[in-house]
Amino acid sequence: MNNQNLKNETQIFFRGLQERICVALEKEDGKGVFVKQEWQRDGGGGGRTMVLQEGAVIEKGGVNFSAVEGELPDKIAKALGLNSNHFFATGVSIVLHPHHPWVPIIHMNVRYFETSVDGKTEEQWFGGGIDLTPHYIIPEQAKFFHQQLKNTCDPFGDKLYPEFKKWADDYFFIQHRNETRGIGGIFFDRLKNSDGFSMSDRFEFVKAVGNVFAPTYTKLMALNKDKQFTPEEKNWQLIRRGRYVEFNLVYDKGTKFGLDTNGRIESILMSLPKMASWPYDPQFSEDSKEKKTQNLLKKDMDWLL
Amino acid sequence: MNNQNLKNETQIFFRGLQERICVALEKEDGKGVFVKQEWQRDGGGGGRTMVLQEGAVIEKGGVNFSAVEGELPDKIAKALGLNSNHFFATGVSIVLHPHHPWVPIIHMNVRYFETSVDGKTEEQWFGGGIDLTPHYIIPEQAKFFHQQLKNTCDPFGDKLYPEFKKWADDYFFIQHRNETRGIGGIFFDRLKNSDGFSMSDRFEFVKAVGNVFAPTYTKLMALNKDKQFTPEEKNWQLIRRGRYVEFNLVYDKGTKFGLDTNGRIESILMSLPKMASWPYDPQFSEDSKEKKTQNLLKKDMDWLL
Repeated sequence: MNNQNLKNETQIFFRGLQERICVALEKEDGKGVFVKQEWQRDGGGGGRTMVLQEGAVIEKGGVNFSAVEGELPDKIAKALGLNSNHFFATGVSIVLHPHHPWVPIIHMNVRYFETSVDGKTEEQWFGGGIDLTPHYIIPEQAKFFHQQLKNTCDPFGDKLYPEFKKWADDYFFIQHRNETRGIGGIFFDRLKNSDGFSMSDRFEFVKAVGNVFAPTYTKLMALNKDKQFTPEEKNWQLIRRGRYVEFNLVYDKGTKFGLDTNGRIESILMSLPKMASWPYDPQFSEDSKEKKTQNLLKKDMDWLL
Repeated sequence: MNNQNLKNETQIFFRGLQERICVALEKEDGKGVFVKQEWQRDGGGGGRTMVLQEGAVIEKGGVNFSAVEGELPDKIAKALGLNSNHFFATGVSIVLHPHHPWVPIIHMNVRYFETSVDGKTEEQWFGGGIDLTPHYIIPEQAKFFHQQLKNTCDPFGDKLYPEFKKWADDYFFIQHRNETRGIGGIFFDRLKNSDGFSMSDRFEFVKAVGNVFAPTYTKLMALNKDKQFTPEEKNWQLIRRGRYVEFNLVYDKGTKFGLDTNGRIESILMSLPKMASWPYDPQFSEDSKEKKTQNLLKKDMDWLL
C-alpha cells in the first residue's frame, strides 16, 4: 500500500469507526446523545469531536476523530529521533467516564502517523491501545476484558498480546503514586513495516483493535449499570478520577503532543472527568474494597487466570 | 551570614512562620483546625504538613514546612545549570482552597535553597512568591492585594515590585489556555548575593513576604466569606479549580521538583482542590461575570489603577 493510499484509507476507516462506536454507545446508554463538533486546526487539518454528556450511564464521554498535518515542532522531532519537518496524524481517541462507580472508565486510541522531510516520507507507523480503569476491580470482568484483547491480537501472532500488554503496564503507570492507572490492556506505538509485518498487516491489526472496542465496553456497561451504589463508592470514584487526571496531565504523551502542537484544547482535555476529587491523604482500612482495588494496581498482573 | 547560619536561621524562621500563619487562619476561619503531620523523607530531611479540611471558610488548605536534603538528581542539576550533586532546601508552601466562590484561592511559597559539590557550597539562593486566584475578580480587592505586595517590596528598592510582578505574570501562565492562573502577584527565584544585595538582605525580604501573607489573606476572607452565592457561581468555581489543577500538574516547577525528588506525594499535591470540574467546552455569554473574569486573565494588567 503506498503512502497516499494509507493516508486516505486510514482516514476513511477511522472516520467510520468513530460513527459506529458512537451508535453502539448511544444504544447501550439509552439516553445520552453524542453532539458533533467539526473543527479546523490552524496550520493544517482538523477533526470531528463527538461528545456525550449526562447520559444514563456515561457522564462525560468523548469520541474524537482527527486528521491533522503541519510543521513538526523541533522539540517533538527531536524527542522522536527524526529529522522531519512535517507530520500527518490521523486517529480516533476515546475516553468515557461513567456516572456509576461500578462501570469502569475506558480509553482507546488508534492512530496512523507519518513524517516527511521536504515532501519525502521519512517514517510511517501505527500506534494505539485500549486500557480499562475500573474504580473497583472485578476479577472476572478484568479477565473478560483482557481475553477480548488477547483474542484480537492472537490472529496476528502469539507474541503480540504479551508484548503489548506489558507495554500498557509500563505506559499507564503513575510513577509518583507507584501504581498503575487501572488494569492496563494493550498499548503499541511505532508499528512499522518490520518483523515480517507489512504496513497493510499493521493496518488490519489496528482495524481489529478499533472494532473490538464497542462490543467490549457495551458489555461492561450492561454488566454493571443497574447495580446499587453508595455515597462512599461515589467518593472513591471521584478519587480514582483524580488519579486519572494526574496521569493524563503529568505523563500522557498524547496529551503532551496535543498541547505542544497547538491542538484543540477542549478535544485534548475531553479525557478529563466532569468531576474529580483530591481529599487530603484519604485512608482506607486494609480489608476495605478500596484498598483491595488499590493493591491490584500493579504491573505484571495476569488477569487471564 | 555564613552558610551554616543561613541553613539554621531559615529553618527556624520558616517553622515559626508556618505556626503563626496557621494560628491567624484558624482565627479567621472560626471553625477549621489544622491537623499536623510530621514526615521524614527517604534520603534526608523531612517536614511538617499542616492541613485544614472542611473549615467554615477553607474547604482544603495546606501550610507545609519542609527542610530536605540529599542527592540532587542529574536531571534537575542539569536543568538548573549546576554541577552539584547535593542539595538542601527549606521553605513554607501554602495553598488554600475556600468553599466560597467569592473567596479567592491563594498560594504562597518562600524558600531557601543551596547546592554543593562534594561538601563545598556551590550556590545559595532564595525564591518564592505570593499569587492570588479569585474565581471572580473584584477590581478593588485585586488592587488591595497588589498594593500589599508593593508595600512589602518597596522598602527593598523600587525595582522589586515591577520586576517580580512581571515574573509572576510569566510564571503563573497556562500556556495551553492562553490565560493567567489568576491575577498574579509576585514571584522570584535564585535571589543571590548580587546586585548590591547580600544574602542577609535577601533573607529580610523573604521574611517580609512571609509576614504579609496572613494579614492579606485573612482580610480577603473577611471581605467575602459572608456573601450569598448561587449554584452557578459554585459551578464556575469548580471550573476555575480545574484550571488550577492543569497549571499545577502541567507547568508548576515546585510540583515537578517534588515529584522528581521522590517527595511526599500528599504534601506536594495538597495544592489540588477537594473537588474540581471539567465540563466539556462550557459557554458563557459575553456580558456574564464569568466571561468578564476570563477576559481579565491576562499578563501585564496594572491592578494598582
